[in-house]
Amino acid sequence: MSTLAITPDDITAAAARLAGVAHRTPVMTSRTADEMTGARLFFKCENFQRMGAFKFRGAYNALAQFTADQRRAGVIAFSSGNHAQAIALSARLLGMPSVLVMPQDSPAAKLAATRGYQQGQPGSEVVLYDRYTEDREAIGARLAAERGMTLIPPYDHPHVMAGQGTAAAELIEETGPLDLVLVCVGGGGLISGCAVAAHHLSPGIEVIGVEPEAGNDTQQSLAAGHIVHIETPKTIADGAQTQHSGRLTFPVIQQLVSRIVTVSDAQLVQAMRFFAERMKLVVEPTGCLGAAAALQSVVPVRGRRVGVIVSGGNVDLARYAALLAGPAPT
Amino acid sequence: MSTLAITPDDITAAAARLAGVAHRTPVMTSRTADEMTGARLFFKCENFQRMGAFKFRGAYNALAQFTADQRRAGVIAFSSGNHAQAIALSARLLGMPSVLVMPQDSPAAKLAATRGYQQGQPGSEVVLYDRYTEDREAIGARLAAERGMTLIPPYDHPHVMAGQGTAAAELIEETGPLDLVLVCVGGGGLISGCAVAAHHLSPGIEVIGVEPEAGNDTQQSLAAGHIVHIETPKTIADGAQTQHSGRLTFPVIQQLVSRIVTVSDAQLVQAMRFFAERMKLVVEPTGCLGAAAALQSVVPVRGRRVGVIVSGGNVDLARYAALLAGPAPT
Repeated sequence: MSTLAITPDDITAAAARLAGVAHRTPVMTSRTADEMTGARLFFKCENFQRMGAFKFRGAYNALAQFTADQRRAGVIAFSSGNHAQAIALSARLLGMPSVLVMPQDSPAAKLAATRGYQQGQPGSEVVLYDRYTEDREAIGARLAAERGMTLIPPYDHPHVMAGQGTAAAELIEETGPLDLVLVCVGGGGLISGCAVAAHHLSPGIEVIGVEPEAGNDTQQSLAAGHIVHIETPKTIADGAQTQHSGRLTFPVIQQLVSRIVTVSDAQLVQAMRFFAERMKLVVEPTGCLGAAAALQSVVPVRGRRVGVIVSGGNVDLARYAALLAGPAPT
Repeated sequence: MSTLAITPDDITAAAARLAGVAHRTPVMTSRTADEMTGARLFFKCENFQRMGAFKFRGAYNALAQFTADQRRAGVIAFSSGNHAQAIALSARLLGMPSVLVMPQDSPAAKLAATRGYQQGQPGSEVVLYDRYTEDREAIGARLAAERGMTLIPPYDHPHVMAGQGTAAAELIEETGPLDLVLVCVGGGGLISGCAVAAHHLSPGIEVIGVEPEAGNDTQQSLAAGHIVHIETPKTIADGAQTQHSGRLTFPVIQQLVSRIVTVSDAQLVQAMRFFAERMKLVVEPTGCLGAAAALQSVVPVRGRRVGVIVSGGNVDLARYAALLAGPAPT
């Protein structure tokens, strides 16, 4: 087994940094879900995490390891999603400036939320760019150079990966050994951290990744034996609209994830409705990936003890309402 | 202080009956809610209770005290709401037949849910009646006489009241003493039980009831000094569409509840959106009464430690989606 970017010790160290800062989110169960599937399902509810998603874990774990110089200059990130809010909040908690490079046409609610998390932290700002005419990486690199800020990527960073792994570690500490854990896959930060934690704490466990049907780059990469790059996929699972897994995350997935399955947007909506109707939980589309695979028998779960990482709950209310009420997307 | 229908000992006994059967529901907090209000708010999440509402507590506590003869004959109730499901589930758990008298035009989902909870329990059925031409009390009385079944009313019964009080007892056991607890008011079963528990466990606590603006019968009753009967109110808080409080619940409210406030349907929708957006919780309109009073400063909460009973999460998904998305009702 070649050397991976993170070890179980990195996750233990991340857990210590996050203690008292991140929420130890609840593990919820549902008799109905268990009856439907014949499994014992444990849902790790990261929709109750600070800023509404697991991303806080990785962001905070990374920023907490900045040197004094790095802290003074602050952090930069580009993201229109949960990573932006995770960085903004973590930076404020640690007293450092944050610059978030976000598309001009980001939903107003996301811009407002990110700015809200930056409040009271001098030097923090949101920098808007035109995603059709400007290159965000160039903007980020220029700002980083000008201001001496450290760039934290959304997934391909060992501190980010280790932070995300604490979600699976907490889950298994609470449930005891599991047969299987289902984890959504975007760039692979969550599943790589969780796979390292899960194999360490529950030897023999199977780790299966779940991607949206339209965005199965990691499934393709595993088949090809190298990272496959795809066009930005069209799926309601906006957190999994990544085009490729990371240089650091992919080798972990190759070694520790047994396979990747996919679910359709219609299956995501069914899972989202199940969460709302039966479990009273608001879960964003990406957060439904693991549950959809279990509830709709995409993965055989009967008779098994199965952990499901529910990655987040940040979804625009109007969009959420439309998905709950409307005809299922096809 | 005249003798009330229940004592703190009744609630302790109810808690023992419910141990391992009812969920000990989580108490959730929200930094955002605390920042908005300047209070420390503790939300007791009965939307996570079995069958999705606090009603399970009272129903089970009542049925668990049936004699052997009563169990054999079973239980009868009329309800189109959470009480029906609470009775159906409790009866099945205790192995007795249940008959639920429900309006012919009840939502299909509610009929299906009630029948689902009755499954596998011989002698159980849903009896439909025409609410425009038939008298449900007459139907209930006839069935009770014919079959020897015991009628359990939705709120005006000491065992039901004591069961509901366990919600506040668990809350305060977890949070320690509180300054105030906000409880929604329909027929008064929940608030009467909670008031007895709260004054016992947190001496000096203030208990405030919250009714929908359109259905303020208990507020009127407190002012009048006797039970006032109103027309069925028009409000989205269907669990609080009661026409009057009970003979047993009202004296408890008179003695232990300092006052009743009201909130509008628009305020309920705002609270419902807050729960979905910021706390990732699906809460039914009635369950939003207490939170609406706190979040919208209907009751002064600044600087106080405040318990809020979130009574349930059973709301038809299409209706829920419409309330989240649509213009606020006026």
